[in-house]
Amino acid sequence: MSFFPAALDNLIDKFASLPGIGRKSAQRLAFHVLSLPEEEVRAFAEALTAAKANVRRCRICQNLTEGEVCAICASDRRDKGTICVVSEPRDVLSIERGREYNGTYHVLHGVLSPMRLVGPDDICVKELLARIAQDEVKEVIMATNPDTEGEATAMYIARLLKPFDVRVTRLAYGIPVGSNLEFADDATLSRAIEGRTEMA
Amino acid sequence: MSFFPAALDNLIDKFASLPGIGRKSAQRLAFHVLSLPEEEVRAFAEALTAAKANVRRCRICQNLTEGEVCAICASDRRDKGTICVVSEPRDVLSIERGREYNGTYHVLHGVLSPMRLVGPDDICVKELLARIAQDEVKEVIMATNPDTEGEATAMYIARLLKPFDVRVTRLAYGIPVGSNLEFADDATLSRAIEGRTEMA
Repeated sequence: MSFFPAALDNLIDKFASLPGIGRKSAQRLAFHVLSLPEEEVRAFAEALTAAKANVRRCRICQNLTEGEVCAICASDRRDKGTICVVSEPRDVLSIERGREYNGTYHVLHGVLSPMRLVGPDDICVKELLARIAQDEVKEVIMATNPDTEGEATAMYIARLLKPFDVRVTRLAYGIPVGSNLEFADDATLSRAIEGRTEMA
Repeated sequence: MSFFPAALDNLIDKFASLPGIGRKSAQRLAFHVLSLPEEEVRAFAEALTAAKANVRRCRICQNLTEGEVCAICASDRRDKGTICVVSEPRDVLSIERGREYNGTYHVLHGVLSPMRLVGPDDICVKELLARIAQDEVKEVIMATNPDTEGEATAMYIARLLKPFDVRVTRLAYGIPVGSNLEFADDATLSRAIEGRTEMA
């Protein structure tokens, strides 16, 4: 039994249904909402429905956008011959932060995971194949996470791309810039040695 | 510069403005919202505005309620002669969980804090005094948190209640039931010895 008013209980339930938010945090968030001015609460509610209503997937690369085509796919300055394949929209953000990459993206919205019953039809693989069949793509860079599922997804897609006349590459493994050899794990270190490059 | 659509950025901002939620968590929550069915997002938005619109303070005890008077103040079975003073609505929940207390409550909605510029007029002290002046109150139990600000608030209110013919008590300090003496701090242990009781 709860001693909170029903409307407050309901709001606590909603917050508690979000990932990573427990019952106690949900209570704290709900009390915080009650302490906000009414306009701010309304703005929050509108932000929720507006994001859900207006954000959709880019027709070309499946990244999140408010238009039909995202800003990167629409740009003349980006090299349409290179596609960087990532698993989530936030990965696009990470790579863009580097200011190095000038091609386009393809967002899979997931990785293959037999454990969680995610197969090739559950992620945006066929949209990628359609792009490669149509456009003049010269290189596909696999940039899924370097974990088991990310690796397996990259390998699966690389195999699918074999019949096409396209170069398929993978992000380099190695020690992070600015880090310390002492803290690098064995797998990373052996990959870094394997992938060593000539010094200029 | 952000590479997310504006509506998504706006939702991330809203989540990040909540207490204890950083930028990364806010992103994760916003992405989760996008993955929900539209009805659920609308229900969340409505829960926000409904909680803010419908939840107000009980006319008598200042606890949160949807009616004019809360369920505890409205009940015939509760002893109106005893008032338990707590700082926050969630403290009512904690004490009710014990199923021991049968009186009413008074929620201060804060504690005195010179550091954060919270004075007696910023918390519901005068509402408490009005109740004691009007009703037949026999006992006021101070149940603010056993920290510096909670203690100071309890002492301040106890002094204000001196002129009234009312017994003012404080929750007992001591070792928590089921805990281990080894882990009890010195202050708690000395309070537990000070407040020792006769064994039956």
